[in-house]
Amino acid sequence: MEEVDLLVKEAFHPYLQKTVDIAVKEGRIYKIAEKLDLQAKEVIFAKGKVVFPSFANMHTHVSMSLLRSLGADLPLMDWLQKVIWPLEGEFVSPEFVRAGAKLGILEMIKSGTTLFMDMYFYEEEVGEVAIESGVRAGLGVGILDFPTKVASGPDGYIERAKSLLENFKGNDKVFVVLCPHAPYTCSPETLRKVLDLSEETGAYIHIHVAETKGEVEKIKEEYGKTPVKHLNDLGLLSEKTLCAHMVWVDEEETQILRETSAVVVHCPESNLKLASGIAPIPRYIKEGVKVCLGTDGPASNDNLDMLEETSTMTKLHKGNTLDAKAIDARTALKIATEEGFKAVGIKGGRVEEGFEADFILVDFDKPHLQPMYDPVAQLVYSAKSSDIDTVVCKGKVLMEKREVKTLDEEKILKEAGEWRDKIWKALQRL
Amino acid sequence: MEEVDLLVKEAFHPYLQKTVDIAVKEGRIYKIAEKLDLQAKEVIFAKGKVVFPSFANMHTHVSMSLLRSLGADLPLMDWLQKVIWPLEGEFVSPEFVRAGAKLGILEMIKSGTTLFMDMYFYEEEVGEVAIESGVRAGLGVGILDFPTKVASGPDGYIERAKSLLENFKGNDKVFVVLCPHAPYTCSPETLRKVLDLSEETGAYIHIHVAETKGEVEKIKEEYGKTPVKHLNDLGLLSEKTLCAHMVWVDEEETQILRETSAVVVHCPESNLKLASGIAPIPRYIKEGVKVCLGTDGPASNDNLDMLEETSTMTKLHKGNTLDAKAIDARTALKIATEEGFKAVGIKGGRVEEGFEADFILVDFDKPHLQPMYDPVAQLVYSAKSSDIDTVVCKGKVLMEKREVKTLDEEKILKEAGEWRDKIWKALQRL
Repeated sequence: MEEVDLLVKEAFHPYLQKTVDIAVKEGRIYKIAEKLDLQAKEVIFAKGKVVFPSFANMHTHVSMSLLRSLGADLPLMDWLQKVIWPLEGEFVSPEFVRAGAKLGILEMIKSGTTLFMDMYFYEEEVGEVAIESGVRAGLGVGILDFPTKVASGPDGYIERAKSLLENFKGNDKVFVVLCPHAPYTCSPETLRKVLDLSEETGAYIHIHVAETKGEVEKIKEEYGKTPVKHLNDLGLLSEKTLCAHMVWVDEEETQILRETSAVVVHCPESNLKLASGIAPIPRYIKEGVKVCLGTDGPASNDNLDMLEETSTMTKLHKGNTLDAKAIDARTALKIATEEGFKAVGIKGGRVEEGFEADFILVDFDKPHLQPMYDPVAQLVYSAKSSDIDTVVCKGKVLMEKREVKTLDEEKILKEAGEWRDKIWKALQRL
Repeated sequence: MEEVDLLVKEAFHPYLQKTVDIAVKEGRIYKIAEKLDLQAKEVIFAKGKVVFPSFANMHTHVSMSLLRSLGADLPLMDWLQKVIWPLEGEFVSPEFVRAGAKLGILEMIKSGTTLFMDMYFYEEEVGEVAIESGVRAGLGVGILDFPTKVASGPDGYIERAKSLLENFKGNDKVFVVLCPHAPYTCSPETLRKVLDLSEETGAYIHIHVAETKGEVEKIKEEYGKTPVKHLNDLGLLSEKTLCAHMVWVDEEETQILRETSAVVVHCPESNLKLASGIAPIPRYIKEGVKVCLGTDGPASNDNLDMLEETSTMTKLHKGNTLDAKAIDARTALKIATEEGFKAVGIKGGRVEEGFEADFILVDFDKPHLQPMYDPVAQLVYSAKSSDIDTVVCKGKVLMEKREVKTLDEEKILKEAGEWRDKIWKALQRL
C-alpha cells in the first residue's frame, strides 16, 4: 500500500461541506477524499474538528514580544520616542532578539500562523528559532539612514542584509527579504541601493508606508509628492514589494498600486491602537489592489493573533463604510491566509490538493462555536485562536492538542520572565 | 478563628500592584490584605493569576445563540427580515429559549460575565436557567406594537411583563426590566404605558435606540424630531433607562442624555458587523454621559465575549478619532464592568472591600500574556476570554480551572446540536 507522510482522518472541510481524509506527502497536500486507505508515517484523528488553511502574518517585529503592551494608550510617535526606542537602545542584542523570537513564534504557532514576515535587528537569531520551531519566515534587517547599535549608516545595514541573504540561502522555510524601514527614514539614495540589491538577488522588499497622516505630510513636504508616488518614481514598487500599513493613500496612489501589483499589508489592530487611522481596504479590494494581513509587532497590537486580526478587519470595514458586504468572512479568511502566501510566491493558503500542507484543525465543540451552521463565518466572527487544536506547516505537525512539539513552552516562559525583570527595572528609570 | 465563605489566596491585584488574599462573606468582598488568616468554607489558590472584576453584559438576546452567525454579512434589516424573523417565527418557543439560554449563559460564564441584561420572549425560561447557573440577570420581554406568537399587541406584551415581574419578585440575582423594543416599533401610547409601569414598580427600562441611520430618518419623519428627543419628550429618559446602541445621536441629544442621566449601552461589534456604524462613545464620555457595554445577541456579534468586546471598543475609538487616548485600557475595563453594575444599582465591578464579590481570575502564564508589565492593558489588548480560569458571582464559584460547576456543558452542547439539525432543515427552505 502507498505510504504518505501524514494522514488527517475525518476532518470537516468547510468549503467541500463534508468530512474528509487529507493525505500529505513531501510537504504538500497530496490527496483529499472522503475515505483514504493509505499507509502513513503519522496519523491525526480529527473527528469533530474543522480544517482551515493556516495564517500568514505578513508584517511583524516578533522579538518585540518582550516589550508587550509597553506604552499602551500612547500615539505612534510618543510610543516610539518615549518608550520603545529608549528600551530598544538599551536592550536590543542577539540574546534579546532570540528570546523574543522564541516567545513570539511560540505564540504564533499556538494561534495558527505558519508564515510570518519579520523586520528587526539580528534577524539571523530569528531565522534560527524559525528553523528550530518549523515555521516559515521571511526575514529582513531594518535598513535606516541613521546609526543604531547594529550599523553606522545605510551601507552598514545593507551589508548586514547581504550576509543574512548568504546565511539562509537555499533554506526551504526561511527566506531573506530587504527591509528599508520607511520612506521617511530612508533617503532616495538608500532606497535605490535596496532596489539594486533586490534586482540582483530576487529578494522581496518589505517596507512601512503611509502609516500616519504626519508621515504623508512629511514626505509631501520633502519630495513634493505622496509616499506611494515617491516610491514608484524611484522604481521601488512591483509585485516584489510588500507595503505595510498604507493607511493614508489617495485614489491616484491606489491606481499606482494596482498597476505595479505592489502588495498592501493591512495591520488594522496596530493602526487602531496607535490611533494611526483606518486603511481604505474595501477601496483596495474593489480596485484590484492586492491585500494581505499582518499583526504588526506585539508591542503595538498587543498580540500576534491573526484570527483576532481577521475578525477585527472584517467588522471594522463593514462598520466604517456602512456596508455589511464590504469584506465578508470568506474574503477575510482569504486575505489572512492565501493572499499572504501568494504575496511571497508560496502556493499555500488553501486546503486543496497540490497546495503546500499548511493548515490548522479547529475544535468547534465549544459553547461559543455551537450550533455550527457556517464554519467559515463562525471561525471569523465567533472563534478564538485558543480553539485551534492542531497546526501543520509544510507537512510537519507543529502543534497537536494545543501542545507545541518543536519548542519548550515552559522554558520560554521562564526566560521571558527573566527579561521582564531586567526591562522592568529600566522602565522605572524612564 | 473567624470563618468566611470563600478565601482566594495569593491573587495578583493589578490596581494595588501586589499579591493579596481576598475574603468573601455573604456575597461581598469582606477583606483584602497581603495575608489573611481566616477559616473559609472554600479556598481557591490563585498563585500566578490576576484578579479583575467580572464583566457586565448590558445588552443581549441570549437565546439567539441557537441562531449563531446565521445571515452573516447581511446588513441589519436584511438580516432581520430574510433570516432571523422567519426562523424565529418558526422556532421561538419556551423550549428554544431555554436551550438557547443554557448555551449562552454557559458561554458567558466561560468568558467571565456574571451579569447580563436580556431582551427576548419567554424570559421566565431565561430566568430559571440564570438562577440554576448562578449568574445575575436583568430580564425583559420585548414589547412591540405588532403581534407575534407571544402576544397580539402592546397590552398583551405588557401583561407578560407584569407576570414576569411577579415571577421573580425578591430574587437576589434575577430582576425584571421593561423592554419596549425601539421607538420605531412602539407607539408613543405603548411607551407611555411602559413608563407608567416602570414608575409603579421601579423597574428599569431597556430599549434599542438610534441603531441605524434609517431608523433615525424614520423617527424624524414620523415625529419631527430625533429619537432621543422623542423619547425624552415622552418622559422616558432617566437614570432608570438603558438605551442600547445609540450610534446616530447628535450633540443636542448628547446633552439630553447627560441631563437625564440615561445610560448608553454600547455594542460595538454588532454595530460594526451589521454595518450600522460607529457610536460616538468618546463624545459621550467627554460630555459626562454614562456608558456601559454589551455584546448584543450572539447572532449578530457572533459571540457573547465581553473581553473581546472591550478590546474592540478601545481600539476602534482610538483609530476612528485618531486619538490614542480616546479610551484607555483602564477606562475600557471600567465601562465593561463597574459602569454596567452601577447602571442597574449593583455595587459591583471593583475588587474592593464592600463591593459585591463578582470577579474573575486570569491565568497570565501564557505566551501571549508574557512578559507581564501592565496586567490591565494586557487584559484588554492581549488576553482572550479562554485565559479566564475562575469566575465568582456574588461569592459563589461558578467556574474553576475552566470547568463550569453549575451547568452540564456536555449535555448543553448535545442539545444545541439537536436544535441545529432542526434549524438547518428550515434554513434549506428559506
